[in-house]
Amino acid sequence: MLIRRREIDFLLKEFLKVGELLNCERYANHDGDTIDGLLDTAYAIAEKEFLPYASKADIEEPEFIDGQVKLIPETQAAVNAYSEAGFIGAAFAEDDGGMQFPWIATQAAGAVFASANVGFYGYGMLTAGAANLLNTFGSPELKSRFIPAMLEGRFFGTMCLTEPQAGSSLADISTLAQPLEDGRYSLRGTKMWISGGDHQLGENIVHMVLARISGAPPGVKGISLFVVPRNLVDEQGSSGEKNNIALAGLNHKMGWRGTVNTLLNFGEGGQCEGYLVGEPNKGLAYMFQMMNEARVAVGMSAAALGYSGYMHSLDYAMNRPQGRPLTSRDPEQPPVAIIKHPDVARLLLAQKAYTEGGLALSLYCARLLDEEMITSDPEQKKALNAMLGLLTPIAKSWPSEFCLEANKHAIQVLGGYGYSREYPVERLYRDNRLNPIHEGTHGIQGLDLLGRKVFMDGGMALGQLLRMVREDCARVSVTPALSQYAQLIAKATEDMIRVTGMLVADAGKGEAEKALANATLYLDSLGHLLVAWTWLRLARISLEALEDAPGTDDAFYQGKLKACHYFCTYELPRVNSNARILAMRDGLFTEMQDEWY
Amino acid sequence: MLIRRREIDFLLKEFLKVGELLNCERYANHDGDTIDGLLDTAYAIAEKEFLPYASKADIEEPEFIDGQVKLIPETQAAVNAYSEAGFIGAAFAEDDGGMQFPWIATQAAGAVFASANVGFYGYGMLTAGAANLLNTFGSPELKSRFIPAMLEGRFFGTMCLTEPQAGSSLADISTLAQPLEDGRYSLRGTKMWISGGDHQLGENIVHMVLARISGAPPGVKGISLFVVPRNLVDEQGSSGEKNNIALAGLNHKMGWRGTVNTLLNFGEGGQCEGYLVGEPNKGLAYMFQMMNEARVAVGMSAAALGYSGYMHSLDYAMNRPQGRPLTSRDPEQPPVAIIKHPDVARLLLAQKAYTEGGLALSLYCARLLDEEMITSDPEQKKALNAMLGLLTPIAKSWPSEFCLEANKHAIQVLGGYGYSREYPVERLYRDNRLNPIHEGTHGIQGLDLLGRKVFMDGGMALGQLLRMVREDCARVSVTPALSQYAQLIAKATEDMIRVTGMLVADAGKGEAEKALANATLYLDSLGHLLVAWTWLRLARISLEALEDAPGTDDAFYQGKLKACHYFCTYELPRVNSNARILAMRDGLFTEMQDEWY
Repeated sequence: MLIRRREIDFLLKEFLKVGELLNCERYANHDGDTIDGLLDTAYAIAEKEFLPYASKADIEEPEFIDGQVKLIPETQAAVNAYSEAGFIGAAFAEDDGGMQFPWIATQAAGAVFASANVGFYGYGMLTAGAANLLNTFGSPELKSRFIPAMLEGRFFGTMCLTEPQAGSSLADISTLAQPLEDGRYSLRGTKMWISGGDHQLGENIVHMVLARISGAPPGVKGISLFVVPRNLVDEQGSSGEKNNIALAGLNHKMGWRGTVNTLLNFGEGGQCEGYLVGEPNKGLAYMFQMMNEARVAVGMSAAALGYSGYMHSLDYAMNRPQGRPLTSRDPEQPPVAIIKHPDVARLLLAQKAYTEGGLALSLYCARLLDEEMITSDPEQKKALNAMLGLLTPIAKSWPSEFCLEANKHAIQVLGGYGYSREYPVERLYRDNRLNPIHEGTHGIQGLDLLGRKVFMDGGMALGQLLRMVREDCARVSVTPALSQYAQLIAKATEDMIRVTGMLVADAGKGEAEKALANATLYLDSLGHLLVAWTWLRLARISLEALEDAPGTDDAFYQGKLKACHYFCTYELPRVNSNARILAMRDGLFTEMQDEWY
Repeated sequence: MLIRRREIDFLLKEFLKVGELLNCERYANHDGDTIDGLLDTAYAIAEKEFLPYASKADIEEPEFIDGQVKLIPETQAAVNAYSEAGFIGAAFAEDDGGMQFPWIATQAAGAVFASANVGFYGYGMLTAGAANLLNTFGSPELKSRFIPAMLEGRFFGTMCLTEPQAGSSLADISTLAQPLEDGRYSLRGTKMWISGGDHQLGENIVHMVLARISGAPPGVKGISLFVVPRNLVDEQGSSGEKNNIALAGLNHKMGWRGTVNTLLNFGEGGQCEGYLVGEPNKGLAYMFQMMNEARVAVGMSAAALGYSGYMHSLDYAMNRPQGRPLTSRDPEQPPVAIIKHPDVARLLLAQKAYTEGGLALSLYCARLLDEEMITSDPEQKKALNAMLGLLTPIAKSWPSEFCLEANKHAIQVLGGYGYSREYPVERLYRDNRLNPIHEGTHGIQGLDLLGRKVFMDGGMALGQLLRMVREDCARVSVTPALSQYAQLIAKATEDMIRVTGMLVADAGKGEAEKALANATLYLDSLGHLLVAWTWLRLARISLEALEDAPGTDDAFYQGKLKACHYFCTYELPRVNSNARILAMRDGLFTEMQDEWY
């Protein structure tokens, strides 16, 4: 089931105030109506072309037949509708062929598509990311050769980072790029886990490939970025004969099967031509733009998958009569709907708090990107970029972890039916299990956060973030209905500040390994704190709405207050508890010997 | 991969002291050698007939062809080997046709089979449970008619409780039993989620069916237990013509596919004959014997599935070179095995602590059943029965929840490979997702624990259990290497005692709904405390072994000490934190209105 429209409207308009963004020059051509129109279109396409085939795309997964990828035919209609409506370039500047919508609006639309059918959504999302990468760092010639066709949905995009022998360790990638005489390069190597790596959905596929120019320094400092099209493309942008990229096989995944996942051999049987993007040896830094975008999108997809499961289990819980209240067990009375059982309420509230909170956090990051794009103040731009950098590992990981838990709860609400493939909740759980893995595992995000982002610019971004949290707590502390939550969040914030100081001091003493041994726990804890803060902000808006216009949509806002109560009461204490654990600087994970397991 | 033999030997011999049990009359025919022989046989069969087909049984799930269930042919060889070696009746008294092995030995063997292929294991486990139920409550005539064939593996068994309209609410089952003139009954109704409900593995299937005799009182007080064979059986135990039980369909599950799961219609197309077991209207009480046995077995299966995933991910982590230590990032140095990364150590230690702890807790329950069987002191028998009743919901649920988490971690260690169906860890995760659902959901176990078992006999069993925990803490507190854990566990015990008192007081004031609203959280918390206690006991044994015979198996015992450290440091604080939440007696889950979600 789709994310509710009321939810999206609430987040965009009431929480993130998209109206404010529309006052800036970049978005001057848009207003509330065009944003609504974009969302109307997204819902219409998601409902008609995406949602009905999510199960089929899972059951009839991509096949490798006669050297080609075979997808269910409905994939084509869905990606066509998506690209024809302009979603691939929805956030691109009009000068670059896009619709110049605010990023938050396009990301909200993306969440709707992901909740409908995350597999189909993958093709457009990756193409937009690849085009955006090329748009930022490519030469005018490369841009004009590829981007228009990508935004039209004639060319699709991929990101080719991982290699079988290297896994997450990009320092070890070995795909080689030999310069050709005409300035192009010939690539040779194997890339693994490539989503959308081959298919017949468009006339071409544009691979964004990390490789080493022969003679480049070892490690990440010798990685360059290349555009490598499946079919060679002339200067007019027409696709010609096949480049030398062999589809070596498909990965058979546990879920998320609607997006084909491939193993590709570049240059195995002859020359594989590619174009260098930007300068040599700066490829990883460039790719991080696409990775960071993809990371926030991963978190948002996780929230969307969780939300979809929440809707299914809510629907089931409201309509399934079973059992009786503890206070009235008379078997001659009719059973009640299971939503009346407290443990089912718990499972639903946890889903609500995780998925709506995760979605709000993801879209908040999108809003920061909008602000970064529109500000002309270089200091502000830098600060926004740093804040987004700090939040990215959390926005990627927190929903991946806790909205997967939401999907687990959705299955539990349906019981045996939830475990049966006749109902969609088990598929959503399988789909979501990918999110803590791809685009940098949970553990890698923890190291990125605690090993890099927390220290950035002397901890400025983290300081600013926690200052905002404190300020919101102080502001809300005078509101009786919310002050208890503000106090709890303020206390958890102080705990995290204290423990961050300890870990930073360890690292300063050269004990980086010790400081980072519990980076994942730190990530989870800071994520929980920030989601609690997000809920406090949502609750404040909801309380104001209840007071300003009582009777209009009370149930919706009451629900937000209850979810805030749930999160601060049942979830937030984990932060205090984890902070105590982190403060111990326990050394177990660095001390283990192989034979002790 | 199988549970390591060293693990089973440690639990049976060093932790649960099976040798002590062998001194009693019931087990006088056994000694260490026969126990070892039983386990040798279990490992040999599990390795040869179960493990190699676990993946195939998942991929080629049971099919419904021409009105019959089609299983992969290897199922037959596996169940034959299992029953021919005597495993179905391994724990039965010799007079009843069994091998009279201690329950802990047969359960340990069961865990080994479950770790190899939980789907194949289901057939024998259910048959043993059904035979045991009949053995306890059936008339001599019924017993002789069915049990010998069941123990030989010619007849298989099922438990038929759930109905489509009733789900977990057994008060609402409506299958009707009309008395026939010869003392038999004619049954009519539909049973859902019936594992092993139809197949061609043996000459017959014996269904243990809950139904209402016409005119019986409503609710659980009107439920009787019947034996209903698929094929009618004469007094000599020979199977004849088909009884009227129609296979209405198969359930297509997310996992655990090696055990066929069916929808059965009894008496739809004519008379379906059954035999009453014991007295009318006592069926649910009888069935609880099988359910309780099955519940502990579910927890043990969960631990076994988690353990198998742990072994796979440990193997991968030791052999997969990737990345470098934080302290030495030189890309020209070779990568290290990922087991050296602290976050991988965390994922492995959590798996070790969950699965080995869960297995120890399960087998501890099996040991209590042995003690209950062999004691001749009625007071002691009653106390042991009560203790087992108290522990059953925890032994069922805790491993179901946390060993599923272990399977999640196993996938994470393997990364993209873990998400691929070419590796077994994703299957184990799917298999294990069933365990929090079947044999009473997680929520139902919470209500059973806090709503019934905690109050039983004025709280005697819980009092005794926590007294044992306290005593062990006091005993260990003088051992420097372990005293920190003892203190933490003692503190968590006091927290749980205090909050239990509050909840009992609430219930005493007639506020049962409020007291039980957080029953699941209570269950999880008491479970965590008991697993910490279990780890303390395992650590104490390990420390003694290290001191008594240094150099013999130090790495094994060091591992136990580290797992204890992990659990008490990283997991146990959850108990204190949850106790604070429980103490609030928050009313959210009972206050929610449908439209707030």
